[in-house]
Amino acid sequence: MMECVSVCVVVLMMSAARGHSLRFNDLTDYVNKHQEEYVQALRDWVSIESDSSDVTKRAELQRMMGVVEEKLREMKGNVDVMDVGTQTLEDGSIIPLPKVVTAAFGEDENKHTVCVYGHVDVQPARREDGWATDPYNLTEINGNLYGRGASDNKAPVLAWIHAVEAYKALDMELPVNVKFLIEGMEETGSNGLDVLVAAQRDAFFSDVDYIVISDCGWQSARPALTYGTRGNAYFYAQVEGPKQDLHSGVDGGAVIEPMTDLIAILDTLISASGEILIPGVTDAVANFTEEERKIYEEVDFDMETYRRTIGVERLMYDNKVDLLAHLWRFPTVSIHGIEGAFSGHGTKTVIPAKVTAKFSIRQVPNMEPAVVEKQVTDHLHAVFEQRKSPNKLKVKMVIGAKPWLADIKHALYEAGKRAVKRVFGVEPELIREGGTIPIARTFQDVTEKDIIMLPIGGFDDGLHSQNEKISRYNYIEGTKLFIAYLHEVSHIKKD
Amino acid sequence: MMECVSVCVVVLMMSAARGHSLRFNDLTDYVNKHQEEYVQALRDWVSIESDSSDVTKRAELQRMMGVVEEKLREMKGNVDVMDVGTQTLEDGSIIPLPKVVTAAFGEDENKHTVCVYGHVDVQPARREDGWATDPYNLTEINGNLYGRGASDNKAPVLAWIHAVEAYKALDMELPVNVKFLIEGMEETGSNGLDVLVAAQRDAFFSDVDYIVISDCGWQSARPALTYGTRGNAYFYAQVEGPKQDLHSGVDGGAVIEPMTDLIAILDTLISASGEILIPGVTDAVANFTEEERKIYEEVDFDMETYRRTIGVERLMYDNKVDLLAHLWRFPTVSIHGIEGAFSGHGTKTVIPAKVTAKFSIRQVPNMEPAVVEKQVTDHLHAVFEQRKSPNKLKVKMVIGAKPWLADIKHALYEAGKRAVKRVFGVEPELIREGGTIPIARTFQDVTEKDIIMLPIGGFDDGLHSQNEKISRYNYIEGTKLFIAYLHEVSHIKKD
Repeated sequence: MMECVSVCVVVLMMSAARGHSLRFNDLTDYVNKHQEEYVQALRDWVSIESDSSDVTKRAELQRMMGVVEEKLREMKGNVDVMDVGTQTLEDGSIIPLPKVVTAAFGEDENKHTVCVYGHVDVQPARREDGWATDPYNLTEINGNLYGRGASDNKAPVLAWIHAVEAYKALDMELPVNVKFLIEGMEETGSNGLDVLVAAQRDAFFSDVDYIVISDCGWQSARPALTYGTRGNAYFYAQVEGPKQDLHSGVDGGAVIEPMTDLIAILDTLISASGEILIPGVTDAVANFTEEERKIYEEVDFDMETYRRTIGVERLMYDNKVDLLAHLWRFPTVSIHGIEGAFSGHGTKTVIPAKVTAKFSIRQVPNMEPAVVEKQVTDHLHAVFEQRKSPNKLKVKMVIGAKPWLADIKHALYEAGKRAVKRVFGVEPELIREGGTIPIARTFQDVTEKDIIMLPIGGFDDGLHSQNEKISRYNYIEGTKLFIAYLHEVSHIKKD
Repeated sequence: MMECVSVCVVVLMMSAARGHSLRFNDLTDYVNKHQEEYVQALRDWVSIESDSSDVTKRAELQRMMGVVEEKLREMKGNVDVMDVGTQTLEDGSIIPLPKVVTAAFGEDENKHTVCVYGHVDVQPARREDGWATDPYNLTEINGNLYGRGASDNKAPVLAWIHAVEAYKALDMELPVNVKFLIEGMEETGSNGLDVLVAAQRDAFFSDVDYIVISDCGWQSARPALTYGTRGNAYFYAQVEGPKQDLHSGVDGGAVIEPMTDLIAILDTLISASGEILIPGVTDAVANFTEEERKIYEEVDFDMETYRRTIGVERLMYDNKVDLLAHLWRFPTVSIHGIEGAFSGHGTKTVIPAKVTAKFSIRQVPNMEPAVVEKQVTDHLHAVFEQRKSPNKLKVKMVIGAKPWLADIKHALYEAGKRAVKRVFGVEPELIREGGTIPIARTFQDVTEKDIIMLPIGGFDDGLHSQNEKISRYNYIEGTKLFIAYLHEVSHIKKD
């Protein structure tokens, strides 16, 4: 009882002192009081293994989409579930894609309409990959909430939902109309969403003014606004030889082994110093201007902290600007692994019959996925040809996502700066993102709406890696940021 | 009834015609009548996932050893379970090795004593590797018994057990004393067995005259006697960089990736035409003599059948002698796979932090594992050094098994020829084996006993590969071969 009374007193005092901020304080107070529920909601969502890259997990992903739909319906949103067609699997079979869930809260023509985009599918994760905790059982350790998808992108989607819910719970009018567009295929390239966005251009998107994406993270401990992302061209290079795996004792020496071929062609992608060796691939990269260099110089980025955070002995570049440029606006090649070879513990003496390398090229303006696909395919076939191997090489680009770049002088970014200042008391950093949010570019090209990326994830959240997490602080303060942002956007002058 | 009568007539007729063979016919008749039990016994054994390379499966392996022990005790053998010490795991922890099971049947000093060596551990197998059936559920399709370990080496061990059992069931005296030595670590290099063999040289092995190993297969549809095997030097090459996996978008471009380093050093092991590129490794290989070439020319080996069986478009060599020589008496390098990289379905955009390549070199006379270890380690470190990578390379030889070669003019081989002729009606082929039976060389060096390899596995059994099998024919006729062989060995003149 005592505690309750003193809290009330504090609220009244703050209310008196800040005038307009009374309602904001009510909202943040509401968020603080409900944070355990928010953490539990995230735990429920993380417990669903909504791995979109593995078709055997598709039922879980469908279940995840159902949970989102139900939640938005409970909040009395105008919910619609939109079909995005089918997916053709490698074996030729065709399955339906998970439907996209949309919802609308408010349709006041005098208000701006903000569309929040998010996704609830996740990257693969297995405990034995090196997770300290079960990746599908959200576990709090020292203020961090560990679980696959915690930061990418389940907590941000929930934070947006909770932001709207807070306004409604306090019976406060939403300062803008809010729409949600939540998908389940982001991690594999937002399959089907391009077509849906085009089809909904003059329907769902017709009254949307701005699109907000919170599918990225800060660069440092300082909050950030993101104005660009790299794209991604993800390749499968498959070498197939014997009709089944052979024994290296019984058959070794008689066979031209697919693994030897595959290793040899992979070794022609990138040099030890990070130079891409595929002819022509870097030709289309935009010039690095002096103006750009200056923006990078102002970014609060400590190389030593970054180096220690990721735990490497030396970074690829020894100065901040080159490093940021190669993270944000130059392409790179990563070899992710090989499917079909022996990958377990122990000493299997197998000659794998069919091995598929997975590698990807992060794309930047003005690279075109279709051009990159041809350059990579031609290059690998040319190198393979020289080996005169009897094995078969197949090269396929399975993701071709374009980069995205925003205008940092737009009012959306000004609103973002004010919201960050209100919640965190600091100016946000202006950053780019090395990763890919494929749909950003599609939104820009097709809907021609203005887009902002407003991240709440921490710089060390370990997206796509073992021990992914979001801190309780970022999750809860992030919810407040979204509440504030809706308010700030309402102050942007209507055209 | 009619059928029974006619069978009895045939037996009597054959008995009259062949004299001594009466008892052999009783034995083969017994085998025929009990073949369903034999298949069921194999099914029971295959159902135990006794994968010795995966320590998480150690309980299953222990259970397998217990089943063997129990079976030999039921048969009233003089059973002993021998400790072979401990195994140090990669994380530094120490666990006991599975004990070796031995048994003795008969101790008549006037008879020869034959020691049968076998193993009941298996290579890894997962349904998703491409097995048409559950690898641990023995499944009969068109006369073939599919299951992991069916041919390597569970059916041969059972066939030896059933051979002894048949003599005992018919109350017939064993023509020789028979000892069994069954281990559970063969697939990872027979850990601990070297020490045991040395320790038992003047105990268990003191009354042993001959050692028989049936851990290999025929070369064609014709039964074979095997007189040589290759050894194996199995390596782990581990490149370690960041302290945990990173995201190719978030961090790609800033990091010297361990996978890129690993691919580059793996690409320096073997050329497209099969030449080993590691300096010095082939220096110790024995000269290929004209006499040897002639033996190879006489082997009934159809390259086209072999090519089609393994399902490749072209073999490494275009003539029989070169091909057999490179399968049997020249070394080769196989890259088996990479642990720690992304190996699943889908499109994970990970930068793996620590990746371990598994590759092996099949060794031949007169290569020395310790020398090869130094040559490979020095070479990989030299190549890695040139890359000036900040990542860490560790190279380790985890198996170093020597090759083995027997004298084909020995009486053991003459006995083998007679036994094959009796059961199959043909002369056996004299062949070598590209794979490794590490213990053969140890038996030879330490016990100085004469050794024969007497295979019953088919040429297309798919050892270590998906869909391993043994045919019902080879399993059952192989049991008869072992029965006949015990008889033939009893005719070898005592010194």
